[in-house]
Amino acid sequence: MSELKNDRFLRALLKQPVDATPVWMMRQAGRYLPEYRASRAKAGDFMSLCRNAEFACEVTMQPLDRYPSLDAAILFSDILTIPDAMGLGLYFETGEGPKFKKTVRTAKDVEALPVPDAQKDLGYVMNAVSTIRKELNGRVPLIGFSGSPWTLATYMVEGGSSKDFRLAKALAFNDPVTMHALLDKLTQSVISYLNAQIKAGAQAVQIFDTWGGALSHNAYREFSLNYMQKIVNGLIRENEGRQVPVILFTKNGGQWLESMADTGATALGLDWTTDIAAARARVGDKVALQGNMDPTMLYASPKRIREEVATILQGYGNGTGHIFNLGHGITPEVDPANAGAFIESVHELSAQYHQDS
Amino acid sequence: MSELKNDRFLRALLKQPVDATPVWMMRQAGRYLPEYRASRAKAGDFMSLCRNAEFACEVTMQPLDRYPSLDAAILFSDILTIPDAMGLGLYFETGEGPKFKKTVRTAKDVEALPVPDAQKDLGYVMNAVSTIRKELNGRVPLIGFSGSPWTLATYMVEGGSSKDFRLAKALAFNDPVTMHALLDKLTQSVISYLNAQIKAGAQAVQIFDTWGGALSHNAYREFSLNYMQKIVNGLIRENEGRQVPVILFTKNGGQWLESMADTGATALGLDWTTDIAAARARVGDKVALQGNMDPTMLYASPKRIREEVATILQGYGNGTGHIFNLGHGITPEVDPANAGAFIESVHELSAQYHQDS
Repeated sequence: MSELKNDRFLRALLKQPVDATPVWMMRQAGRYLPEYRASRAKAGDFMSLCRNAEFACEVTMQPLDRYPSLDAAILFSDILTIPDAMGLGLYFETGEGPKFKKTVRTAKDVEALPVPDAQKDLGYVMNAVSTIRKELNGRVPLIGFSGSPWTLATYMVEGGSSKDFRLAKALAFNDPVTMHALLDKLTQSVISYLNAQIKAGAQAVQIFDTWGGALSHNAYREFSLNYMQKIVNGLIRENEGRQVPVILFTKNGGQWLESMADTGATALGLDWTTDIAAARARVGDKVALQGNMDPTMLYASPKRIREEVATILQGYGNGTGHIFNLGHGITPEVDPANAGAFIESVHELSAQYHQDS
Repeated sequence: MSELKNDRFLRALLKQPVDATPVWMMRQAGRYLPEYRASRAKAGDFMSLCRNAEFACEVTMQPLDRYPSLDAAILFSDILTIPDAMGLGLYFETGEGPKFKKTVRTAKDVEALPVPDAQKDLGYVMNAVSTIRKELNGRVPLIGFSGSPWTLATYMVEGGSSKDFRLAKALAFNDPVTMHALLDKLTQSVISYLNAQIKAGAQAVQIFDTWGGALSHNAYREFSLNYMQKIVNGLIRENEGRQVPVILFTKNGGQWLESMADTGATALGLDWTTDIAAARARVGDKVALQGNMDPTMLYASPKRIREEVATILQGYGNGTGHIFNLGHGITPEVDPANAGAFIESVHELSAQYHQDS
């Protein structure tokens, strides 16, 4: 593997000194980029983009080519590859979210689910990882990722997206044994999936707990955090002679940062409802923090975006341990020029906070 | 006005001793009740229910008749009556949320908006309040309500519901002067609307800040909390020889309770993501707390619902200052028997926490 030319992202995660705050954007390879839309049209549909290593590599590289200041690449894939590999039949209907042909709602449904073999059943993801690593050639680190067990379980029980997660929650509340059996199977699957990504070349991993924040504080611990803890414990934490940082991101999890930090994760993702200054004070030296500009701010003017970046940088304050990001994925209608203004302003405005480095 | 027979709700709000924790449910007059669906079919549509004092009174009373243990009634109305009275033309399309015929997106649009005269333009709401008070005949107190200025503004700018509030936020970020002018007009309108409700007989009022929690912590203060503060300052706080409590409910506002308590509101509404024990410790004696069972728990068994009620009661602990509620509105598919199990269990299980009263 080639030497890493820009390790700002990994250094900040490990709270090592940096010259400027690193930045990347969740969903940075996405529909707001005309070059992405062209690749997707060429590939036919979304899952064909994910399943073909060349296409996945092409779209992963697009934001890096457009924005040379990005400090990390993230594997282009979907969070629902694991349930798809379990045989649920993932598909996308135009204008709607992801759907599954089969749902999981009973003890028997859970028993029948296989734990996918990451190499055999999800080999296309590992191919994408190694293809992207080669193409990156050490330019920036590559982030691998997975959905959290609870987040995956919601889609599997509901059969797709949901507003209130009624079926998934009713299963958890009325038949916790079955829900825990499902979450156990998913946890095993996520561990082997992320470890395979790490072996294939992912240099950091992020767990997307998109729907953990829809749970009550008690149910969050029981059905989501508990399993993310097992994942953190089960991951390869060193590879290629370097630590492999783990980022936990529970959207809407700002009230639970202390318990999230106790998992031993390297960093926590913050959405924009959390005051990053308060978050830093609460978690102390336990974890780095990633975030947290409201993605909707990218619909504002470049001047206003710059002001918001300045406010967040000032909130975090001096020193390392902050990875700048949006508080959730960038949305399709954003002007790519505004995303560029965002990225550039992070490096420009953050140098002053790293002068003792 | 007749003597109040059950003042548990008002006493708990004011942190006066009670014999059991009072309980009501947001959206308790709603589609989960077959008798409500019958009234609505009779009325024709949702806004006809709201505009006709007899219908509004009929559906307000339905949950009280079915569940004699409910400790409060809430005015049956919509949160968007103010923008409708401003001339935006509120309508509902089947299966979709509320919509407006006209939107508000420019300084000129804001200038053109009238501040509605609560008696003249919203007289139907005041008629409903006084009709319901007569019908209640002192059985339980009547809660009046309004949407928060920010919440109303999102619908007015977007023209209806929104997933990411892109247009409303872009206006706030790019043209804060215009957004503040809109919020100022809405604040004046809400103050006169709630004061008219109080004069007509509302014995407590709740401000529903449904979408304040979609803002960043800074933007929440600037665009939502700031205006709720002005409302709290502008409200009639005593009527009929009794204090008129004010409840602030910012959905997803669990990280901001301290600042919400500083407004001088009587109580804060909590959604289910907040640990009520931690919330009580954070706000101390400043405010009472209302909440906070996940409404989805009503899809679980009566036994499981009872356990959850017990956990929340234990979380709040001994003494007054807690009004039991769901963390958001009850949803249409809930079995009314489960709502009954919820309500009954609150009184039954809470008496032990009020033995020193």
